[in-house]
Amino acid sequence: MATAPSVSYSMTVRLEVPAGGTAVSQLTTAVESSGGSVTGLDVTASGHERLRIDVTIAATSTSHADEIVDKLRDIEGVTLGKVSDRTFLMHLGGKIEMSSKHPIRNRDDLSMVYTPGVARVCTQIAAHPEDARRLTIKRNSVAVVTDGSAVLGLGNIGPKAALPVMEGKAALFKRFAGIDAWPLCLDTQDSDMIVEIVKAIAPGFAGINLEDISAPRCFEIEARLREALDIPVFHDDQHGTAIVVLSALYNALRVVEKRIGDVRVVMSGAGAAGTAILKLLLAAGVKHAVVADIHGVVHAGRDDLQNAETDSALRWIADNTNPEGVTGTLKQAVAGADVFIGVSAPNVLNESDVAAMADGAIVFALANPDPEVDPAEARRTAAVVATGRSDFPNQINNVLVFPGVFRGLLDAQSRTVNDEMMLAAARALADVVLEDELNANYVIPSVFNEKVSGAVAGAVRDAARAAGASAADVTTATSATSAAMAD
Amino acid sequence: MATAPSVSYSMTVRLEVPAGGTAVSQLTTAVESSGGSVTGLDVTASGHERLRIDVTIAATSTSHADEIVDKLRDIEGVTLGKVSDRTFLMHLGGKIEMSSKHPIRNRDDLSMVYTPGVARVCTQIAAHPEDARRLTIKRNSVAVVTDGSAVLGLGNIGPKAALPVMEGKAALFKRFAGIDAWPLCLDTQDSDMIVEIVKAIAPGFAGINLEDISAPRCFEIEARLREALDIPVFHDDQHGTAIVVLSALYNALRVVEKRIGDVRVVMSGAGAAGTAILKLLLAAGVKHAVVADIHGVVHAGRDDLQNAETDSALRWIADNTNPEGVTGTLKQAVAGADVFIGVSAPNVLNESDVAAMADGAIVFALANPDPEVDPAEARRTAAVVATGRSDFPNQINNVLVFPGVFRGLLDAQSRTVNDEMMLAAARALADVVLEDELNANYVIPSVFNEKVSGAVAGAVRDAARAAGASAADVTTATSATSAAMAD
Repeated sequence: MATAPSVSYSMTVRLEVPAGGTAVSQLTTAVESSGGSVTGLDVTASGHERLRIDVTIAATSTSHADEIVDKLRDIEGVTLGKVSDRTFLMHLGGKIEMSSKHPIRNRDDLSMVYTPGVARVCTQIAAHPEDARRLTIKRNSVAVVTDGSAVLGLGNIGPKAALPVMEGKAALFKRFAGIDAWPLCLDTQDSDMIVEIVKAIAPGFAGINLEDISAPRCFEIEARLREALDIPVFHDDQHGTAIVVLSALYNALRVVEKRIGDVRVVMSGAGAAGTAILKLLLAAGVKHAVVADIHGVVHAGRDDLQNAETDSALRWIADNTNPEGVTGTLKQAVAGADVFIGVSAPNVLNESDVAAMADGAIVFALANPDPEVDPAEARRTAAVVATGRSDFPNQINNVLVFPGVFRGLLDAQSRTVNDEMMLAAARALADVVLEDELNANYVIPSVFNEKVSGAVAGAVRDAARAAGASAADVTTATSATSAAMAD
Repeated sequence: MATAPSVSYSMTVRLEVPAGGTAVSQLTTAVESSGGSVTGLDVTASGHERLRIDVTIAATSTSHADEIVDKLRDIEGVTLGKVSDRTFLMHLGGKIEMSSKHPIRNRDDLSMVYTPGVARVCTQIAAHPEDARRLTIKRNSVAVVTDGSAVLGLGNIGPKAALPVMEGKAALFKRFAGIDAWPLCLDTQDSDMIVEIVKAIAPGFAGINLEDISAPRCFEIEARLREALDIPVFHDDQHGTAIVVLSALYNALRVVEKRIGDVRVVMSGAGAAGTAILKLLLAAGVKHAVVADIHGVVHAGRDDLQNAETDSALRWIADNTNPEGVTGTLKQAVAGADVFIGVSAPNVLNESDVAAMADGAIVFALANPDPEVDPAEARRTAAVVATGRSDFPNQINNVLVFPGVFRGLLDAQSRTVNDEMMLAAARALADVVLEDELNANYVIPSVFNEKVSGAVAGAVRDAARAAGASAADVTTATSATSAAMAD
């Protein structure tokens, strides 16, 4: 697959060129003949003999950017100045900040925001702890917690290197759902310790977003935190992905006119995302699911499932999928399947594997940046193809889900998050695509579709309230007493 | 001491009154005859027969506010509507929020702030961890950490009830020093656990502000964290207070024309603040210090210092103060002293105790809200009096110090904070009061004096750099390599 030049590899190059001659026109030619594209060209200073020009260029990779800069340097008469990387520039000093909601202009402001006035608010919460949701940032705050053990596709790069992702996540929480998230990048990968830390920091937050924690540790950490805390704990890599996949599947099934209970689903990948997708698909009514990992199809009789030390997640898969006892390779299992969902590795399937699937095949090849099968090749025979990439139709992107899910949980003051809420989120996201909009290249809306976050939030909020998971009733009852002055 | 009506006990009362007659004029009379004061009166709706009026009233306490409301209710023809407490209104939904520094308007923005562009920044930091200070929020972020065990004068009210104070602190960090602070209120009071948690969350922060943690646990927690971390750890209740006290003492000594090495200092209180003040005074050159606690003057021969279980902080005081071996009560020790510093309990001294001090006596009575001695009475014989209250001259307020101290530490990318930096901060704060401004009622500037934060920050930054405590040299050296594109 050829990759298109992307703004995420975008740089601004400052050049001095002769005012006369062909040097200026050669700039664009040099960039485009190198496979880059010029997205901006500004003359920032001009004299009789020389021009200073800032050229903004999109490349396909860091090495590609270096090549283009070399080409520009070679143009006769051109002097190369500073090269600014736009993505790095946006990261200087970090991407988020803390702001005060009230100005502190004088002694009066200070005496209400801080001492002595604040003491009365503290006393109120000490007497009625549930008022923390009303009188503090708790109600709208989410901790974005990582240990840096599985960051994007980069692996175990540690807490500091994970911070830019967590800041970006926090920025997205605000942009799409008005939520105040703060990153906590932990300098430990000990599961017990992570559980204790998150339990300890919970009082100031209304939700915990676990992020980029490696499997199988993420399962245990999430399960123990859900058990211990009275606020929802959501590992976005698992459940955010699962919800978007189910949502896209709902709409893809509408396109091919099949029912979720009838289709044969084959999955590649039994990691964090794969396991969560599988569980949500089963909860949504999938009856025929087969999972393959690096050793082939998972079935109860497989050698590595014969001893007691087997990964409990793998054991769960063996016990809850593959009712027909399929064995063999991924490719064998895919033959005749209705749906393929890959959350594994690049190029595990080829065009003929997809061609061997049932008519009206649905292929979600989500490995990033290189999918399980080339989406262009898959599309030759499959009816619907989706990837994790933004340069093909039907991008499966968690940004569609996590802001709205947390908005709904926070609005309901939910103490937990469960399958019903996640199923509601998937259905609401699918329904954002209207009947007359739906087609094979549009089974999932854009992340910039303004309806998405509100639709997901409303569905989750209603599901949380219906489940009686809300802390709101308690709060309403008690806050009517001494705090009535604040209403 | 009579307390003046304060905006921190301010409420807005909605009333309906007859348009004719004397009811309107009776409102103000009723408030003022009850000892309150009317700070605003707005007619929000008017008809031929009735007016709707919002009266904003400052009271001295919650019960006083209730009394005033009762008085208003008793006025003939008045109907009482909603009573809004201004301090509580400011706290609804919390006082701080998270903001994104960059708009996320479209796919291009998203691809730089988040995936895929963010991956390159992560990779850069993974290869050069010191670049986290340049490419993330770390450089300007401070964690405000409490366990809720000693909040203001309210005691052990726990993490949720402590949150309004920590939010206020974060707001002040931004207002006075442009720092992004986020509160972490911990649901544990186990010292080992607190140490482990703060160590774990440190990667995302450039400094740790410990807050409202009870003594003696705060000493051990701070010491262990300073040992473990490569960012400064500052327990504001200790050192912030100590710096402001030393600063005020510097200027008070200028007023009375005495030298710090000559004066006899008597302190009341051996808690967190008292111990920190003592240590900083000794570092500043105080030679004659005596400390009294609830059992009287601390000396090596005292009964409770004869066994091995003695509090190590108390042992330290006995070993490092009172060279003359003074014994007896606080009152006995105060007789003839040049300086009294109280960080203990209300009314431990009276007017005649202060009268028995040396000529040109300096009295800092810092217990809140009720000082160790009535400041008006103390002022009859003492040359300089300071308190922690905002309604007397010379308020000793940590807000004068902590924002500037952290600004200086962050600007220097300091790995630590030490006595030299704190002495520099105290001197810089004292010097904000110019020679021709200095007098007995102005030994310390206002928190809204615009010079304060910058003066303190500059002094701390220079001291940190001089101490070689800065991480900046390392960063500069390495970031010149592959990250040059971002400069």
